[in-house]
Amino acid sequence: MDKFSLHPQLASDCHLLGNLGLSQALLLDDSRYPWVILVPRRAGVREIFQLAAADRHGLLEESCLTGEFMMQAFAGEKLNVAALGNLVPQLHLHHVIRRKDDPAWPGPVWGHSAAVPYPQQLLDERMRILRDGLSIAT
Amino acid sequence: MDKFSLHPQLASDCHLLGNLGLSQALLLDDSRYPWVILVPRRAGVREIFQLAAADRHGLLEESCLTGEFMMQAFAGEKLNVAALGNLVPQLHLHHVIRRKDDPAWPGPVWGHSAAVPYPQQLLDERMRILRDGLSIAT
Repeated sequence: MDKFSLHPQLASDCHLLGNLGLSQALLLDDSRYPWVILVPRRAGVREIFQLAAADRHGLLEESCLTGEFMMQAFAGEKLNVAALGNLVPQLHLHHVIRRKDDPAWPGPVWGHSAAVPYPQQLLDERMRILRDGLSIAT
Repeated sequence: MDKFSLHPQLASDCHLLGNLGLSQALLLDDSRYPWVILVPRRAGVREIFQLAAADRHGLLEESCLTGEFMMQAFAGEKLNVAALGNLVPQLHLHHVIRRKDDPAWPGPVWGHSAAVPYPQQLLDERMRILRDGLSIAT
């Protein structure tokens, strides 16, 4: 079996939060939305149903932990969870905090408009909140 | 606890395939994409993480069964799975078969363009294929 390595597009678009039990956790570099991407560390998988049963359930638990924490920490009005992968073939699961005053509301965030990269201070703060909340050691 | 009833917007936009163990299965009335929506029959739930653990895992299994069958039956190139709910607050999980020649590729289908309702013959055929494949009694 091939060894897992993060797809270069995800590596380029995101900041690495660290590892959960199954997934790499990434923060997308778009300061307009708290947006965490989970990437199961399994090579060659494009779809959730291609994961072994234990991994499917592990991903679900990590997704629920992540989404629930984000909703509380960032005062979200709605969570968007999605596995799309039309452009990046490596399985990855989006978790996006939505608010009625965000730029794309109520439409989808994907393809809406160019990302606005984080200023350093806000990036540091969000990374710290997320690593603390998701119990990711640094 | 309130009794579950399907949100009127979903009832209006979709054709009812029938019940899986946990979810109502719906076919969205847009003939351009094979598009199945699963709605857990639990009242008052907006987010996957609000489901009890057994229901989360039941939904995941139904989602994987549905998505894998659709990819095979409709020769999909990519499956999009998403829980958005910005407009309809009842938890519902989209499963959309994507192809490089579909109207919205590679962008998201949500908010792209108005649905093209099914002609009756194609609707009957898709409903039959999905009910057979998902073992939904009629």
